[in-house]
Amino acid sequence: MQTEELTKDEEKTAKDYYFKSYSHFGIHEEMLKDYVRTDTYRRSILQNSHLFKGKIVLDVGCGTGILSMFAAEAGAKMVIGVDMADIADTAKEIIKENNFSEDKILIIKGKIEDVELPVDHVDIIISEWMGYLLLYESMLDCVLFARDKWLVPNGMLFPDVARLYICAIEDEKYRLEKVNFWDDVYGYKMSAIKAKAMTEPLVDIVPANQIISDTKCILELDLYTCNKEDLDFTSNFELTMNRQEFAHGLTAFFDVQFSKCHIPTGFTTAPFGEHTHWKHTVFYLDEPIRAVPNSKLYGTMSVQKHPKNPRDLIICISSESPDSNQQRQSRRYLMR
Amino acid sequence: MQTEELTKDEEKTAKDYYFKSYSHFGIHEEMLKDYVRTDTYRRSILQNSHLFKGKIVLDVGCGTGILSMFAAEAGAKMVIGVDMADIADTAKEIIKENNFSEDKILIIKGKIEDVELPVDHVDIIISEWMGYLLLYESMLDCVLFARDKWLVPNGMLFPDVARLYICAIEDEKYRLEKVNFWDDVYGYKMSAIKAKAMTEPLVDIVPANQIISDTKCILELDLYTCNKEDLDFTSNFELTMNRQEFAHGLTAFFDVQFSKCHIPTGFTTAPFGEHTHWKHTVFYLDEPIRAVPNSKLYGTMSVQKHPKNPRDLIICISSESPDSNQQRQSRRYLMR
Repeated sequence: MQTEELTKDEEKTAKDYYFKSYSHFGIHEEMLKDYVRTDTYRRSILQNSHLFKGKIVLDVGCGTGILSMFAAEAGAKMVIGVDMADIADTAKEIIKENNFSEDKILIIKGKIEDVELPVDHVDIIISEWMGYLLLYESMLDCVLFARDKWLVPNGMLFPDVARLYICAIEDEKYRLEKVNFWDDVYGYKMSAIKAKAMTEPLVDIVPANQIISDTKCILELDLYTCNKEDLDFTSNFELTMNRQEFAHGLTAFFDVQFSKCHIPTGFTTAPFGEHTHWKHTVFYLDEPIRAVPNSKLYGTMSVQKHPKNPRDLIICISSESPDSNQQRQSRRYLMR
Repeated sequence: MQTEELTKDEEKTAKDYYFKSYSHFGIHEEMLKDYVRTDTYRRSILQNSHLFKGKIVLDVGCGTGILSMFAAEAGAKMVIGVDMADIADTAKEIIKENNFSEDKILIIKGKIEDVELPVDHVDIIISEWMGYLLLYESMLDCVLFARDKWLVPNGMLFPDVARLYICAIEDEKYRLEKVNFWDDVYGYKMSAIKAKAMTEPLVDIVPANQIISDTKCILELDLYTCNKEDLDFTSNFELTMNRQEFAHGLTAFFDVQFSKCHIPTGFTTAPFGEHTHWKHTVFYLDEPIRAVPNSKLYGTMSVQKHPKNPRDLIICISSESPDSNQQRQSRRYLMR
């Protein structure tokens, strides 16, 4: 049985590594080259300079400083970028190279919970905090902390709405490759690894034509009002199948909105949208479900932070499909 | 200037993470699914059971235990697999599931330098120790340690020969994408990251048709006789260009041989061979070199372990091409 307990060593290591991994530039390259992501942020800021003009802006988890530079270019009076990873040192160099003074863009290296800002309040918080499955890595906690500590009443958040969705998918070929592979590895069985492969959600691209049901929203976050506690949630959902297939798994994806923009701005990470570096998150079912058009799948999904390593997520999914005479099945997944 | 100094924290983290990363099963999946790698080891062992029958075999860095199982199946009297990562615990389960007794395959979790074996000597050492650029991660040190401590005179090593090669490549498109990208990121310059991108060798697939010179061996290791000191080396090489092109970089790859096999057995990771999970290692030159058929590139490459984190490599390459009136250029790379 897969355990979600981390040894003390693993726990420390995971934490240390998280910040180191963000210091290596490869991840920033991937994020910057995700055009859906970066260009939506760019447009949400630069096409709405009427919102940014003269404002004090906080960029939570600023990375290379790209969003801070967008905000400064949009006319912000001052932008403060905070990041605790070593990339903050690089961001300082980048800011300087692009001729922004420290009065305009100030990069602070440190944890958002620990840093002191040179101002008491900020007018706008910008942040690209989304992880796989929206919540993986728990960076939204930092944004909510910053909101509660520094955002003025009627201040703005970019983005300010996030939604998580789920749908059923056909995925026989890939499931064979990723899970059943361990049944016969050059003639040997590796059940211990197969069990782990079933328990870890798979982050990969799901082609849109593998979706075999409608899509349901299982979490909607209004960033002005939601709290840290809302990020551990349980949601019931009902999916209606739209073709005769086997459902091998469920896949989750998210979208975000920048609702204060002059023109509605946002993006989706759905399989039917342009691909992003977030890809899609797949949860394989123990037993594939026989689907026919209009048959139902009733499910419950709960997501909670790992008690020992809050960046990891424990996800429980149970589902049943009475139309297919298939009994309720449940599984606990660990995303780490 | 890129510095190869790691902070104390980074150093510790890198070390911790190394072993954790091998515990996550994804890397083992990638290695097992590398058919060139795993099937060559399989054939070198199973088609040479005359060498393994009744022998005591040590598997250094046994991972999932796959090579240990091959050796047991080939008739070894006893196989001892050693790995210090948590995968050793999984290997124990796998060994049991495949009905090998502890008398037949014993998995020991620990550092090769620290473990005590139940025997004084072993007849054969098998190990898949190769990293990117052959030497990255320095696992060969462990094999040489085990050889000196436990291998009987006339004992065998699988593999027992390894060679590292270099050649010149045309790579304009990818260089633009990976290096020049940082000149204009949504209108901003990110020279600090560009400098890092130039300094870190790129590990990726190089299509064979991008090779524009002959190939030279820059390191040959006879595993029976080489020492740890031989793994830090300097090599002069002369490449002859074979078409009119620009050389944007040099690429390195390796091959290994199992020379005790009845039929010569081995594999190459060259661009002109089947692709492996080791891919190819690319070093971009500061100045592309104008090549014409039969023009020469004279180079020197030195590789040494990072003094603070011996799994990392410091690589210095200098090159000149008098035929192209191009002066000597030198660069220091850090592989980490």
